Amino acid sequence: IRTGYPEVIYGEGKTAEQVTGIVKSMLKRESNVLITRTNRNVHDSIRSLDDRARFNPVAKTIALCRREITFSDGYVAIVAAGTSDLPVAEEAFETAQIMGSRVEMVMDVGVAGIHRLFAKMDVIRKAKVVIVVAGMEGALASVVGGLVDKPVIAVPTSVGYGTGFGGVAALLTMLNSCASGVTVVNIDNGFGAAYSASLINRISSENAHG
Amino acid sequence: IRTGYPEVIYGEGKTAEQVTGIVKSMLKRESNVLITRTNRNVHDSIRSLDDRARFNPVAKTIALCRREITFSDGYVAIVAAGTSDLPVAEEAFETAQIMGSRVEMVMDVGVAGIHRLFAKMDVIRKAKVVIVVAGMEGALASVVGGLVDKPVIAVPTSVGYGTGFGGVAALLTMLNSCASGVTVVNIDNGFGAAYSASLINRISSENAHG
Amino acid sequence: IRTGYPEVIYGEGKTAEQVTGIVKSMLKRESNVLITRTNRNVHDSIRSLDDRARFNPVAKTIALCRREITFSDGYVAIVAAGTSDLPVAEEAFETAQIMGSRVEMVMDVGVAGIHRLFAKMDVIRKAKVVIVVAGMEGALASVVGGLVDKPVIAVPTSVGYGTGFGGVAALLTMLNSCASGVTVVNIDNGFGAAYSASLINRISSENAHG
Amino acid sequence: IRTGYPEVIYGEGKTAEQVTGIVKSMLKRESNVLITRTNRNVHDSIRSLDDRARFNPVAKTIALCRREITFSDGYVAIVAAGTSDLPVAEEAFETAQIMGSRVEMVMDVGVAGIHRLFAKMDVIRKAKVVIVVAGMEGALASVVGGLVDKPVIAVPTSVGYGTGFGGVAALLTMLNSCASGVTVVNIDNGFGAAYSASLINRISSENAHG
Amino acid sequence: IRTGYPEVIYGEGKTAEQVTGIVKSMLKRESNVLITRTNRNVHDSIRSLDDRARFNPVAKTIALCRREITFSDGYVAIVAAGTSDLPVAEEAFETAQIMGSRVEMVMDVGVAGIHRLFAKMDVIRKAKVVIVVAGMEGALASVVGGLVDKPVIAVPTSVGYGTGFGGVAALLTMLNSCASGVTVVNIDNGFGAAYSASLINRISSENAHG
Amino acid sequence: IRTGYPEVIYGEGKTAEQVTGIVKSMLKRESNVLITRTNRNVHDSIRSLDDRARFNPVAKTIALCRREITFSDGYVAIVAAGTSDLPVAEEAFETAQIMGSRVEMVMDVGVAGIHRLFAKMDVIRKAKVVIVVAGMEGALASVVGGLVDKPVIAVPTSVGYGTGFGGVAALLTMLNSCASGVTVVNIDNGFGAAYSASLINRISSENAHG
Amino acid sequence: IRTGYPEVIYGEGKTAEQVTGIVKSMLKRESNVLITRTNRNVHDSIRSLDDRARFNPVAKTIALCRREITFSDGYVAIVAAGTSDLPVAEEAFETAQIMGSRVEMVMDVGVAGIHRLFAKMDVIRKAKVVIVVAGMEGALASVVGGLVDKPVIAVPTSVGYGTGFGGVAALLTMLNSCASGVTVVNIDNGFGAAYSASLINRISSENAHG
Amino acid sequence: IRTGYPEVIYGEGKTAEQVTGIVKSMLKRESNVLITRTNRNVHDSIRSLDDRARFNPVAKTIALCRREITFSDGYVAIVAAGTSDLPVAEEAFETAQIMGSRVEMVMDVGVAGIHRLFAKMDVIRKAKVVIVVAGMEGALASVVGGLVDKPVIAVPTSVGYGTGFGGVAALLTMLNSCASGVTVVNIDNGFGAAYSASLINRISSENAHG
Ligand SMILES: Nc1ncnc2c1ncn2[C@@H]1O[C@H](COP(=O)(O)O)[C@@H](O)[C@H]1O
Ligand SMILES: Nc1ncnc2c1ncn2[C@@H]1O[C@H](COP(=O)(O)O)[C@@H](O)[C@H]1O
Ligand SMILES: Nc1ncnc2c1ncn2[C@@H]1O[C@H](COP(=O)(O)O)[C@@H](O)[C@H]1O
Ligand SMILES: Nc1ncnc2c1ncn2[C@@H]1O[C@H](COP(=O)(O)O)[C@@H](O)[C@H]1O
Ligand SMILES: [Mg+2]
Ligand SMILES: [Mg+2]
Ligand SMILES: [Mg+2]
Ligand SMILES: [Mg+2]
Ligand SMILES: [Mg+2]
Ligand SMILES: [Mg+2]
Ligand SMILES: [Mg+2]
Ligand SMILES: [Mg+2]
Repeated sequence: IRTGYPEVIYGEGKTAEQVTGIVKSMLKRESNVLITRTNRNVHDSIRSLDDRARFNPVAKTIALCRREITFSDGYVAIVAAGTSDLPVAEEAFETAQIMGSRVEMVMDVGVAGIHRLFAKMDVIRKAKVVIVVAGMEGALASVVGGLVDKPVIAVPTSVGYGTGFGGVAALLTMLNSCASGVTVVNIDNGFGAAYSASLINRISSENAHG
Repeated sequence: IRTGYPEVIYGEGKTAEQVTGIVKSMLKRESNVLITRTNRNVHDSIRSLDDRARFNPVAKTIALCRREITFSDGYVAIVAAGTSDLPVAEEAFETAQIMGSRVEMVMDVGVAGIHRLFAKMDVIRKAKVVIVVAGMEGALASVVGGLVDKPVIAVPTSVGYGTGFGGVAALLTMLNSCASGVTVVNIDNGFGAAYSASLINRISSENAHG
Repeated sequence: IRTGYPEVIYGEGKTAEQVTGIVKSMLKRESNVLITRTNRNVHDSIRSLDDRARFNPVAKTIALCRREITFSDGYVAIVAAGTSDLPVAEEAFETAQIMGSRVEMVMDVGVAGIHRLFAKMDVIRKAKVVIVVAGMEGALASVVGGLVDKPVIAVPTSVGYGTGFGGVAALLTMLNSCASGVTVVNIDNGFGAAYSASLINRISSENAHG
Repeated sequence: IRTGYPEVIYGEGKTAEQVTGIVKSMLKRESNVLITRTNRNVHDSIRSLDDRARFNPVAKTIALCRREITFSDGYVAIVAAGTSDLPVAEEAFETAQIMGSRVEMVMDVGVAGIHRLFAKMDVIRKAKVVIVVAGMEGALASVVGGLVDKPVIAVPTSVGYGTGFGGVAALLTMLNSCASGVTVVNIDNGFGAAYSASLINRISSENAHG
Repeated sequence: IRTGYPEVIYGEGKTAEQVTGIVKSMLKRESNVLITRTNRNVHDSIRSLDDRARFNPVAKTIALCRREITFSDGYVAIVAAGTSDLPVAEEAFETAQIMGSRVEMVMDVGVAGIHRLFAKMDVIRKAKVVIVVAGMEGALASVVGGLVDKPVIAVPTSVGYGTGFGGVAALLTMLNSCASGVTVVNIDNGFGAAYSASLINRISSENAHG
Repeated sequence: IRTGYPEVIYGEGKTAEQVTGIVKSMLKRESNVLITRTNRNVHDSIRSLDDRARFNPVAKTIALCRREITFSDGYVAIVAAGTSDLPVAEEAFETAQIMGSRVEMVMDVGVAGIHRLFAKMDVIRKAKVVIVVAGMEGALASVVGGLVDKPVIAVPTSVGYGTGFGGVAALLTMLNSCASGVTVVNIDNGFGAAYSASLINRISSENAHG
Repeated sequence: IRTGYPEVIYGEGKTAEQVTGIVKSMLKRESNVLITRTNRNVHDSIRSLDDRARFNPVAKTIALCRREITFSDGYVAIVAAGTSDLPVAEEAFETAQIMGSRVEMVMDVGVAGIHRLFAKMDVIRKAKVVIVVAGMEGALASVVGGLVDKPVIAVPTSVGYGTGFGGVAALLTMLNSCASGVTVVNIDNGFGAAYSASLINRISSENAHG
Repeated sequence: IRTGYPEVIYGEGKTAEQVTGIVKSMLKRESNVLITRTNRNVHDSIRSLDDRARFNPVAKTIALCRREITFSDGYVAIVAAGTSDLPVAEEAFETAQIMGSRVEMVMDVGVAGIHRLFAKMDVIRKAKVVIVVAGMEGALASVVGGLVDKPVIAVPTSVGYGTGFGGVAALLTMLNSCASGVTVVNIDNGFGAAYSASLINRISSENAHG
């Protein structure tokens, strides 16, 4: 386990007992804990262990902060196309926070109404790294990628229907982006995007301070 | 055969003899003829039949105009993302022409440099119908679709590599476009897009005159 | 927002509260509102805001008409293969209506009993634009496309099983149609087909009047 | 080996030497031999063994008739959508012949011009069994299936491009046919369709004769 | 509607009211009716219309015989690999019956225990046409196809898991069968297989008698 | 590098110079070397290094034996469906040999003529482990798997066309085999199958002797 | 039925009555019985037949041992990447046991924390054969395959989301393993892996004793 | 165009004339130019424009440096699994260089021989960002991702055969990596990985200096 990083539990399909067991086994390390893809039921169990546990019902995450987080200077911009992408954007938000990254959220700026995106370009351009969350055709990643000169991490979401194929259409769009500087994570993987973004943001801080 | 429309031959895999044979059998009808996915070799054979035949080496089409084309008032805008998409855009151009549509070509306006697209929005917005030709991730269709209130016909091209899957990524992008008013044709089907666009453009003219 | 067009909300996965919130934020614009992929529960909330809201339980749409719709002269024909395709056809119907298009519905004319289709060709041929809705193998689009010289917009539906792959078989059929003049939208996207069809129908009217 | 049936060699990727070797090993059985997916080069070798060998350059087959074929009373109709489907239709023709089936060929009756199909329905309806050969979207199988009450065997061909996926679109169309009585074989498998059709045709003859 | 054939209703997703409505509209034609992919609830409604309706809970079919069925001389063999394939085999059975075909059922003869198949080859070989129903890898179709010289219609079933992909593995096996004389229908389409088989079986009878 | 095992070079896309370089770097270890997916050109280069190199033109392998191979007691049976599968079977043969396994080859026993397989069951049953090589639908693996109680390693080959999808159909058949005791390797991977088979055969010998 | 082997019932979709019926029909053979993919309900029925039946709720198996199992000398190592893979690992465990193989379980050694794997390499290396169970990207199979010189049987699991495609990503990883000596079974097929592993382990024992 | 960044031309399918034309149009901007997926023929044309052009025949790139590159302090580690992955690794190398990143190359460290990777972990761990290039099953990305706490950018390559599906297997592995901090680019996209890596590396330098 790397110092200063949270321990992360992938909660999908794990019972409250199993998750509690894993968290207990981590108690001695005093590190912060993030549980993703979990539910309120698991949260109740964790809270009886440690009442600092906090559930985010949109993100479906539990954050348990046992040591204070030192935040980096720069920030991560999380840019989401539509309100349906919010759960993934929130998972990214929770992950970035517990990794020590400050975050700016820019919501509802899908390319069908591109003026809404342009209205927010300032806050996006000043980020150290940009996460783009989009479902359906996922074109937002290419447009943002063309407008900023910072690394862009694209998260396809499973929002859509028919030939959206549960996020595959957005994934392919992002992998084939004609804009340079875009890398991609698994469908709905807000966690993974924010984890990488925070590693990048941290490099920036480390160098500034170190 | 509908009056005033060209007869169209799909040239793929047909020998010069076969194509010439088909053209001969059409001679009596005096209609215009368009041959797609063909080559200069076939062109040479057709020319010895009728020297009005004209080969477009980029589009890989032969146009044989035996009766004068009456052009519609409005025009079709053909918008292409990159120079690699040119063959498909040219096939669309040849088809629209022989169908009686005036055309405006807008090239090299991929979303990675979106200012180039904005510089051309005027000519695009004034069209009766817009054809968007794009490979790789095909995001241009969504962006254009969001900016115009005319029907947009999107043509995915096989330009790209890896997960572009020979045009499938662009196709899925276009089918899942978050912008309304976008319909889609087969990969590299510049012909089909221009055929439909010309039917639309013609409705507009017919009503204006009729 | 373009004048005279409805505002459209994609209702999938949005709670009554979320949809109501979005509708409220649109109140000042006095435009008509269409909500797709929604349910009666959402309808009840919207009605308490504005009792002109009308729910179509087959289409799963809510139409809220605040300003009178001016209908175009020409009409859109919506042609559906089987009764199982009705929900998609109805979504197209609701969309075309609120976009100001008159509509003629032609139901249950799948190609397995092609005489039923021929009995209706008159009303189909007189439309400005034809929407074809079909699941299973979707062959209806090709047959209709071959019989009319108007633009055809094909909507594959998820009706079928096994190798129908939730509408993919019908989609591929339509994209590969040997009839010219057919463009395609996403699986079950009655809304998108009718939106494009209405843009086309409107061009026709504008020119007639303008 | 069943009495009265030809021996069949799948020629793909086999050298003239290999095919000649296999034919030699069959000499003692005096049965007729059909070689599919072969070429003129192989034909030359086989002819030096037995000069009754006959090459069909469109079908890419060699037929070697050593014993007279007794033809059935009924016939198989082979119906093909376009001229590009001819090689597959010819492979079916050669196979049906050597299996003892009389054949009626009906070419170039794709659904884009459905009147051409109707002009030929008489000869199709009188067949004992119908083979439909079609590429692109393969809709012909459904239309024919709806018009005849005989078994229809559909052969998807690899004719097409883009989302035709080398015959997969036509295959899916045929497997999902809304017309009853349609069964399907592998892409471009004219041989297989005609083999099954001839088994069916033979049943009919056998019973007629007792 | 062809004389002497049942009318068939595809029951999937239709309510009791809808199915009853369709059946009522057929009453005047006095033909037999088969409803597939239905349930006991629909059966109860149909029975109150006509108490000759009979539900097969394994096949999920309702058969309503209003005129006596004249059975053909020959029979169709329905050969199924495992007990999980029974619902599809029963759908085929019900369809063949109402089409006027006598049937022999041969169950539980998957290729993992090939001696069980050999023990039943006699009854299989004497059929006019053989239906093979198999899921998982579907190899039974090839083995049976190699052992009989009658047409074989293969039905892939969705039985299996993982890379069975809901019947796709079995489908591909059957389409690629190295045995000649095998044609294929959609996954789980016991109805379609038996419909075609009965058309074949009927040809045989017609000739014998006619 | 494990003692007694050959060093293996995957020759695909490597120039004669590159392969020779790798072989030279292995000279000091005096181990045997197997090069797969190579050609005669590479062979000529290797021979000038060490004239014990031996090229198998069907397998496309080079075997360079510098130390004598100690053969195991038991043998591996390599069972192939058709002559087109020979290259893959030969790659397996070469690999098994240099791994120290005795081999029995059983060719041309596809399930379409199952009596040919039964005629060879004796030699197959006495093997310690059986490799089944088959393309098209790959049903041979299931049939053999049901007849022997030894581990079966199935190798799908890319032999076939259309829905064979370059070996995918055979692969799926093998992965879904209803016979127990079948494991699978990559398409055309005769090397991998024989490598695993030899590890198994060796366990058997080791125990017998040790 | 091979002597000394259990009889295996695939329980998926079978009712308690059906499974009990099959077990009863096996009673006379006095062999051991393994039921996979079953549930506690079925277990209750089987227990009333024979109270030696034992249900494993994680593996979802019932083992019914009527004759004592003679265990082999060597053992099978079952190595699983994460706790979510446990059900598949347990199915493998139950199968290996009833086949007479001793087993060592090595859990929670995914490649993200490779030191945990290295800590267990001793017990893995001493096995006669190794089963690797992993979902998500399934990289564990390649790493283990590179570290041991025993046959490795890889089981992809459906653990994961998005582009995990229900186990397909892990399956492809395993089929393309750059380590030699890895063979693969169907997704989640712990049974099949352990069946093959036990056949291999048994060879080893037989030779040692025989 | 962002200051200090090279202009990049995607050379695939462009003639020497087309590329030279594009380069000429950039002359006024005096920026550096990188041409990817090009050939020696194009190089010759570019050289006659500006003899500072340099061709890398393995990477298939042309670098034209008109202004001196200022290199960052930190470096990018490019880690490749096998020699077949070299072209992609070299494309990444050329891109990183012209973007101003120092690079350390670590070759031939595939997971089948994991000790070779461990011998190089020092130089990998000290990088600011790590690019992992791997084909076949691509497991290297997960293993490296688990060992470093820097951002990892994974590039799947098309090296492999059969179920490698031209890089898709490696892509899926990388997208589903169980190690955190891994993002992915398109198959064979060495350019894109290095572009993103250099943006990250530059952030680090900027902060250190600024
Ligand atoms: N939502 C997520 N998506 C992908 N990976 C995750 C997610 N949440 C946690 N992980 C990864 O899963 C690991 C924990 O897996 P586990 O041991 O099964 O709880 C963490 O170290 C993360 O790398
Ligand atoms: N064009 C074809 N498509 C599919 N199967 C074929 C074809 N031609 C021959 N066959 C089958 O291949 C068998 C001969 O295969 P082979 O022994 O490899 O020559 C014949 O008995 C037929 O069943
Ligand atoms: N199980 C089935 N699978 C495929 N097609 C069927 C099935 N049952 C009925 N059909 C076909 O569906 C038609 C009726 O469709 P519908 O008008 O929707 O009831 C019938 O004429 C049959 O051709
Ligand atoms: N035909 C083959 N298919 C799959 N893997 C192979 C093949 N030939 C060699 N290999 C593997 O590739 C490794 C050598 O790869 P390389 O270092 O690229 O030559 C060997 O150790 C084998 O594990
Ligand atoms: Mg950028
Ligand atoms: Mg628009
Ligand atoms: Mg038309
Ligand atoms: Mg019919
Ligand atoms: Mg047969
Ligand atoms: Mg066995
Ligand atoms: Mg190994
Ligand atoms: Mg890491």
